[in-house]
Amino acid sequence: MDPDFSRLDEYLDENGLDGYAFHDDDSNSNLYYVAGFGAPDPFFAVYTPEQTGVLVSSLEYGRASKEARADVVARHSDYDFQAKREEYGPQAAKYRMVAEFLDDLGCESVAVGDEFPVGTADGLREQGITVDPDPDNVVQDIRATKTEAEIEHVREAQRANEAAMARAEELIRGADREDGVLVREDGEPLTSEYVQQEIEIELLRHGCALDDTIVAGGPQAADAHERGSGPLPADDPVIVDIFPRNKDSKYHSDMTRTFVNGDPSDAHRERYEVTREAFEAALDAVEPGTTGEEVNQAVVDVFEAHGYPTIFTDPSAESGFIHSTGHGVGLDVHEMPSVSHGGEELQPGHVITIEPGLYEPGEGGVRIEDIVVVTEDGYENLTDYEISLT
Amino acid sequence: MDPDFSRLDEYLDENGLDGYAFHDDDSNSNLYYVAGFGAPDPFFAVYTPEQTGVLVSSLEYGRASKEARADVVARHSDYDFQAKREEYGPQAAKYRMVAEFLDDLGCESVAVGDEFPVGTADGLREQGITVDPDPDNVVQDIRATKTEAEIEHVREAQRANEAAMARAEELIRGADREDGVLVREDGEPLTSEYVQQEIEIELLRHGCALDDTIVAGGPQAADAHERGSGPLPADDPVIVDIFPRNKDSKYHSDMTRTFVNGDPSDAHRERYEVTREAFEAALDAVEPGTTGEEVNQAVVDVFEAHGYPTIFTDPSAESGFIHSTGHGVGLDVHEMPSVSHGGEELQPGHVITIEPGLYEPGEGGVRIEDIVVVTEDGYENLTDYEISLT
Repeated sequence: MDPDFSRLDEYLDENGLDGYAFHDDDSNSNLYYVAGFGAPDPFFAVYTPEQTGVLVSSLEYGRASKEARADVVARHSDYDFQAKREEYGPQAAKYRMVAEFLDDLGCESVAVGDEFPVGTADGLREQGITVDPDPDNVVQDIRATKTEAEIEHVREAQRANEAAMARAEELIRGADREDGVLVREDGEPLTSEYVQQEIEIELLRHGCALDDTIVAGGPQAADAHERGSGPLPADDPVIVDIFPRNKDSKYHSDMTRTFVNGDPSDAHRERYEVTREAFEAALDAVEPGTTGEEVNQAVVDVFEAHGYPTIFTDPSAESGFIHSTGHGVGLDVHEMPSVSHGGEELQPGHVITIEPGLYEPGEGGVRIEDIVVVTEDGYENLTDYEISLT
Repeated sequence: MDPDFSRLDEYLDENGLDGYAFHDDDSNSNLYYVAGFGAPDPFFAVYTPEQTGVLVSSLEYGRASKEARADVVARHSDYDFQAKREEYGPQAAKYRMVAEFLDDLGCESVAVGDEFPVGTADGLREQGITVDPDPDNVVQDIRATKTEAEIEHVREAQRANEAAMARAEELIRGADREDGVLVREDGEPLTSEYVQQEIEIELLRHGCALDDTIVAGGPQAADAHERGSGPLPADDPVIVDIFPRNKDSKYHSDMTRTFVNGDPSDAHRERYEVTREAFEAALDAVEPGTTGEEVNQAVVDVFEAHGYPTIFTDPSAESGFIHSTGHGVGLDVHEMPSVSHGGEELQPGHVITIEPGLYEPGEGGVRIEDIVVVTEDGYENLTDYEISLT
């Protein structure tokens, strides 16, 4: 993958800045995207239109030299870090070292993401470097538009996702029902934790790691971020939301299905049908030039027409539609563009989720989520998994 | 677990600050430790000696109200975020909202960790809030001393670790040797990826998630952070380094063993024996009042006595002992105290690794790692796993 950094060059030029800097570990996807390298402990990197440099500890030097998309790979010892540390203490020594590294790369002023550590920012400012937080988050914005290779990475993660979802569906639909809960063949209750574990084992077998997995049934499903625990209920919706990360590519996918084993109440059935209608309305709206806000509005319109509250009409709503319609997916499981209030214009190569849901505290919830890529004339659905409640 | 925040109160008092603030997601263990709550998207929290407050989106409000160790749980809609967003744009709206929330908690000045996002720091400063990075990292320092409950969490993660290590050892020692590589029963080469997968499945079955797992053999083992890939070599050391996180408690453990299937060279054997001697010397040095630096020096002394280079005597060394002796382990797999150059005084309740190793580019490496807790009169080794190369 060879990212197109011309927008980054323009940003630096427009703002009169020499480079774009990072100081973070491999949880920072902007850094990974720009430097082509990650490490478990924080390291420093700077992009300039002429060259990219990374500054790492001895421990990471060999790997950085091999892996980083960088013209300059330096290590702490190149800047006499230990001597500086004796003289100035560990923090000030670090800022002095980084300032010297920036000087060697001809950088007197850098843009940084909002998330850049304030300790390093203030430390570099004391060394005379201009550090200018970038409110536009230009690197995230560049990352939002995926290359063909990146889309293929998401596809691969989504195939693993479908295998894991099939395993979850098999466990839930195949369970017996006893005293209102689902029961495994061996007579033990089927729990959220058991289904999560089986999902995650399936993901591992498909080369994926996991952040977390949601298997939430009954009243637990009313909280959209609740992971779920304990025996799963019969006759009630169980939300299964899986968002694996491929270990090699580091790209994610994201999909949700809602399953009932048994006979759901009319209220649950209606919430599912209306959610499905909102889901289809959102997909119909996806095309280049439409904004994420408009796609979200298509969902809100359906829910409102059926009398369900939403946080977009009543920000303090605790039932109904209480989250956004979707989000970008890539190196992060939540990234730009936003498919919500304020969401940007969609462009070909944007990979987004469409995931409306309805929730009722004390009762439960339903959600349906596919992942799609915006194309020149609409979208391609990257998801291949049936949508069915019972 | 009820952390002791008296040191935090002292820090704020000494520095004349009203509170200690966080703006991050659940990857920030300091935030999780103080607020008792994590979320996948960034949220704001502030600790004051009188009360702790968290400010979350509607989506997280229910869970935060239940889970957070907070006296005040507010949500964006309490501060008219949507109206502010229309008026000021998303970033400025966020800073205004947080400034109002701080005002409601009586905070005009806050300490923040070095890693606090500079965008938020600068935004709050524009709103008249003093934001003062804390070079002492007082929350990490408080976290370094574990309660009995926390030590029990590490023990539990370590039991999972031992089960996973046993699975890895069984696969490696039980493999056949063919043309210089290890071979599974089905005739396929035994790869790093296969052993990693089996380790991670075992961890999942024991309630643990994983960050990553190192199974690196032959020349790959010369790079201490290389994960390893491809067929594993016969007759050469394979480093297996496992650092699981218990999903419920979120606490980690960390252990490394090095295995050879076959007949290692004399150079490999010697590196292993000397590493073992350094390992024992380090353990002998662990007791309250000794510094992490002194424990590290015990390792350096053994390696120097046997003629191996170290980065502590030659900072640019690429062979020999090229990383630190150890690190604290808890909510983060790498945390304070440091067992390295500059490492702090050890205190009862510190949980640290002891993990010397020797590496030779082009040939390979060996490492031995246990995890121990410092006690009133020495240490207790939390690791129960045999140490044996062949």
